Amino acid sequence: MSDNKIQVGVIGCGAIGREHIERLTNVVPETKVVAVYDYVREPAETAAKQYGATVYDSGEALIRSDEVDAILVASTDDTHADYVMEALKQNKYVFCEKPLALTAKECEKMIEIETKQGHRLLQMGFNRRFDKGYVEMKEAIDNSEIGEPLMIHSAHRNISQSPGFETDYAITRVAIHEIDISRWLLDEEYDEVQVLKVKQSNHTAGDWLNPQLVMFKTHSGQRVDVEVQTDGAYAYDIRCQVVGESGTLDLPDPATVVKRNNQSVSNDLPSTWAGRFGKSYDDEFLGWAKGILNDNIVGASTWDGYAACVTTDALIKSRQTGNPEKVVMIEQPDIYK
Amino acid sequence: MSDNKIQVGVIGCGAIGREHIERLTNVVPETKVVAVYDYVREPAETAAKQYGATVYDSGEALIRSDEVDAILVASTDDTHADYVMEALKQNKYVFCEKPLALTAKECEKMIEIETKQGHRLLQMGFNRRFDKGYVEMKEAIDNSEIGEPLMIHSAHRNISQSPGFETDYAITRVAIHEIDISRWLLDEEYDEVQVLKVKQSNHTAGDWLNPQLVMFKTHSGQRVDVEVQTDGAYAYDIRCQVVGESGTLDLPDPATVVKRNNQSVSNDLPSTWAGRFGKSYDDEFLGWAKGILNDNIVGASTWDGYAACVTTDALIKSRQTGNPEKVVMIEQPDIYK
Amino acid sequence: MSDNKIQVGVIGCGAIGREHIERLTNVVPETKVVAVYDYVREPAETAAKQYGATVYDSGEALIRSDEVDAILVASTDDTHADYVMEALKQNKYVFCEKPLALTAKECEKMIEIETKQGHRLLQMGFNRRFDKGYVEMKEAIDNSEIGEPLMIHSAHRNISQSPGFETDYAITRVAIHEIDISRWLLDEEYDEVQVLKVKQSNHTAGDWLNPQLVMFKTHSGQRVDVEVQTDGAYAYDIRCQVVGESGTLDLPDPATVVKRNNQSVSNDLPSTWAGRFGKSYDDEFLGWAKGILNDNIVGASTWDGYAACVTTDALIKSRQTGNPEKVVMIEQPDIYK
Amino acid sequence: MSDNKIQVGVIGCGAIGREHIERLTNVVPETKVVAVYDYVREPAETAAKQYGATVYDSGEALIRSDEVDAILVASTDDTHADYVMEALKQNKYVFCEKPLALTAKECEKMIEIETKQGHRLLQMGFNRRFDKGYVEMKEAIDNSEIGEPLMIHSAHRNISQSPGFETDYAITRVAIHEIDISRWLLDEEYDEVQVLKVKQSNHTAGDWLNPQLVMFKTHSGQRVDVEVQTDGAYAYDIRCQVVGESGTLDLPDPATVVKRNNQSVSNDLPSTWAGRFGKSYDDEFLGWAKGILNDNIVGASTWDGYAACVTTDALIKSRQTGNPEKVVMIEQPDIYK
Repeated sequence: MSDNKIQVGVIGCGAIGREHIERLTNVVPETKVVAVYDYVREPAETAAKQYGATVYDSGEALIRSDEVDAILVASTDDTHADYVMEALKQNKYVFCEKPLALTAKECEKMIEIETKQGHRLLQMGFNRRFDKGYVEMKEAIDNSEIGEPLMIHSAHRNISQSPGFETDYAITRVAIHEIDISRWLLDEEYDEVQVLKVKQSNHTAGDWLNPQLVMFKTHSGQRVDVEVQTDGAYAYDIRCQVVGESGTLDLPDPATVVKRNNQSVSNDLPSTWAGRFGKSYDDEFLGWAKGILNDNIVGASTWDGYAACVTTDALIKSRQTGNPEKVVMIEQPDIYK
Repeated sequence: MSDNKIQVGVIGCGAIGREHIERLTNVVPETKVVAVYDYVREPAETAAKQYGATVYDSGEALIRSDEVDAILVASTDDTHADYVMEALKQNKYVFCEKPLALTAKECEKMIEIETKQGHRLLQMGFNRRFDKGYVEMKEAIDNSEIGEPLMIHSAHRNISQSPGFETDYAITRVAIHEIDISRWLLDEEYDEVQVLKVKQSNHTAGDWLNPQLVMFKTHSGQRVDVEVQTDGAYAYDIRCQVVGESGTLDLPDPATVVKRNNQSVSNDLPSTWAGRFGKSYDDEFLGWAKGILNDNIVGASTWDGYAACVTTDALIKSRQTGNPEKVVMIEQPDIYK
Repeated sequence: MSDNKIQVGVIGCGAIGREHIERLTNVVPETKVVAVYDYVREPAETAAKQYGATVYDSGEALIRSDEVDAILVASTDDTHADYVMEALKQNKYVFCEKPLALTAKECEKMIEIETKQGHRLLQMGFNRRFDKGYVEMKEAIDNSEIGEPLMIHSAHRNISQSPGFETDYAITRVAIHEIDISRWLLDEEYDEVQVLKVKQSNHTAGDWLNPQLVMFKTHSGQRVDVEVQTDGAYAYDIRCQVVGESGTLDLPDPATVVKRNNQSVSNDLPSTWAGRFGKSYDDEFLGWAKGILNDNIVGASTWDGYAACVTTDALIKSRQTGNPEKVVMIEQPDIYK
Repeated sequence: MSDNKIQVGVIGCGAIGREHIERLTNVVPETKVVAVYDYVREPAETAAKQYGATVYDSGEALIRSDEVDAILVASTDDTHADYVMEALKQNKYVFCEKPLALTAKECEKMIEIETKQGHRLLQMGFNRRFDKGYVEMKEAIDNSEIGEPLMIHSAHRNISQSPGFETDYAITRVAIHEIDISRWLLDEEYDEVQVLKVKQSNHTAGDWLNPQLVMFKTHSGQRVDVEVQTDGAYAYDIRCQVVGESGTLDLPDPATVVKRNNQSVSNDLPSTWAGRFGKSYDDEFLGWAKGILNDNIVGASTWDGYAACVTTDALIKSRQTGNPEKVVMIEQPDIYK
């Protein structure tokens, strides 16, 4: 940790990787990107040049380098698990974009390694835990402002998708945010999940299923419903209502100017996640840096990444079987409690 | 129809009956209550005296009386079917408070009789179809402001219940409003329904189940979820959001003064249905009178009462079996189309 | 008062008169229109025929008729004073549309006559005192929810005007509502008023001044500002915020469906006063009937009509002089306290 | 500009100075604080130590130092003018906290110097020009969403003040924000201003006047009213409504969780400016850095500081005379157009 800054190595220099390098460089005072790797050389070299970092020949070499204090994994989904495990083995802090792994088995291995290291090393890229609105909801629940939480009604609506979108991505890339944030808000694990078929929208660009209705039940019987509109919606609109015994909490819309014209009163809504959650990404990495400096990672953990993975699997199975499916998890090690 | 007014006979002079007599007398210019009956004589006599009506010895006598043009049935639930069938046989207009009958079979008989009469005679007491908010939602759907409707997310929350409340009433007396209004908004019949168990509230006065999560699916696959909180809620709060392909519509909260004090901005919410839907009852009876005068009843029909009955039965069965249950209805006669 | 109904005579059978006859007949159970007069015979005869009333040859004859218990004055502005004074002399209840008179002197005479009769006989047509929103604001002030009221910020915005509109009408027909409702909310008399010139809108159909900014100051120093847009506004929009020492109260927008589409969340606003204040007119006449039956008129009084008249005069003078002008009133008789 | 960073010297290391040093160091990637001065040595040394800067013996020495590219003036109000003039003479970029000077004459001298330098060097600390809400309002006006702007209704409400608060501070430290932002939104200069006396709040900690009603009129006749509550308000609440010919724009409340409990729906409001405008300070300095790098300062200018100074003087005079007072300004040099 030279220059009093956390020396970060970034694996994956695509769009998201670049955006995070920018944040780690210019938004987070405590971090400095010193090393980069990408399986395609060119974007790594561009990033290295722009930010004064060194290009590495492999992710493993980057992870093991003495100059690297902490690793950010923003490579393709199928490579996350190996990089993360290597980082954990090296007892280095690592930030992993979702998903943590392609299989629950891999997550279990990570949990085993991290547990042996005896302290939390990994932070999952579940940025919503740093969104001001969700944080306020969590605080209000903890302050008993709505009594015991019993249900969550939520919706995840998108205007469009990148080419190549598939039905399962509605779970693995879209609803995965609700999988995580609902567990976090309710502070419980899921017992059973289900995907319900819904009348389809004519506004879907491709042939994937849209919308889908996704349901979670926790062990104490709390219910979560998530409407997932992956395409054709009126805005990028994320709704979340926690229903307690004595009140409800709604995630607020972004604050925008109130317009009165043409016989209506209106507020604009965002069109993309960038317009909605940009600030939460900043706060996520500011939080990561603080967590490293205090050896007290507070964002989503390996356990949370595992829970998301198991839940995702059960949901995809439910979509295929048409039935509710059980979410079966290993026992939770103490370091995640 | 002397005095140019519709001569109404009212069966059932309890709280609701009396309230409706008041409306028919003082709010609806086209109606006059001339006859009353109650199986307990005293309330009938009180009402008769106050409103200048005649007390009858039986509901049947009242229905058949030449002085009575139209009948309002507000007696106990188990008596609705017989009174309604008698009125239909007499080819007289009849308004029936929910439920239409205790069994679907009885409803089918009514449909048979009414169909033979060749025109709609009955209006069900589903007042929400006359609520300004729901009416605006229906208009916005019909005006294609949100594209094809795909889902409804709704909630029915109560602060308290009368003594003697039971679990099934959450369906038969509470969610029955959502059973009707959702069909009306979506303009489709249900194919399958389900009651989902939810973590229970500690704020329930008795031992009935609270809350419950009620789900409907229409034949085209539209999904409706209804959160039913029968007790302990923060207000009498009715939420309804119709989700279309390209937009959503939310039932508005009642307009109340916006208060800024104590570091918050707030609006009061109603505590009872009277504070929320009072106006819709007025409009329901104003609409009934118009329907009679034009021989064109526009409120909920015998068919709608039947649909509610079949759906209610399936939901209660689902609560017992824990599974989704089919809603099986007879073919719809033309007079209801 | 035959038939247990208040026998009302209506003077003036134009648009507003007809609308009120309809209300007195069909909305207010306690009243019956038995007599009508208009200086043009034909509309009176039409109304008489439709509602079963008698046409009189003069307003005076109608007022003095034994068959008439109470008089509604809805004739042209210049005739109000004489009819009202005749009614007061006859010790009969009278409802007068605004303005009460064309001069303050005439109002003073009415006050003298009514005071001699020893009880309130007149109700002014200031309907907003019966609007649910304003009533809630008044209650919240009385309940000390915002501490001592110090200011009112308000706006009166119109989409268009009838042909023949003139600059002074912005005071005498438009802001007159704010003159009355602000006094009522603050429970104080004005000491000084002023009209401030404002940059003019290009959306004015004629050559009258639009907008104008109207200011009132009460004796204790409370300030009221009223933005008056008489033409070209985006909606019929009435805004009113009472500012107290420890909070504010805002008149609510009408409850309309919340639409989310086209990247915005919106609610429709009304285009005319009918869409905004229709219900308050009903309640105004329901209140009038109750006031008569209890000999306890609660709507705006002769004194309030006088205050409006004096304030209007001072405002018009202020517009001409460009200076603040004093509001000078006689001492308030006890029957108005 | 070594290290590719703008080398900033900070004059004044009190609370605000320290906060800005923190921002320039950790939030703005393009700046580095290298020099500090305070007339009390100790806070300067503390800051120097914490941020790795050099302590200077005088503001003048700091301004003239070759190591300093740009100066931030956050010292006491009476010293602003001299430091700013020295910086302008040195042709160095300078950021000055409000007020720019204690007299309009001093501002005129600055304008003369800067004009001779031929380009804008100074940015005034009017942070609201960088607040997302105001920026959206400005864009909406420029996009003709409300037609020609005619009026602004605004309010500036505070819960409490620091000890030593005085009546004039309501103008010079509180309403000064509205003086600037209203000119900016309307894009016009003031012609006449006035302070109106208002009934006083009992919730004022000291003996200064509270509230006050402040009015501005622009040359084209646009009117601005500003309610200034300096103490005892329910929240730190900043309201601003721009009224155009065909619509209005309201500054939004901060987005906070929507709570439904205890028979009400509510949102929390902030208690201090830090909770309301914190982000705008970040954006203000990010904007400053960009302006320096592009030699194109975009925040409030010396001219804007001068306008605020002249307006402030006229308002204080108006409060003393009780009359409207003229705002008389020199001709605007081209570099400010």
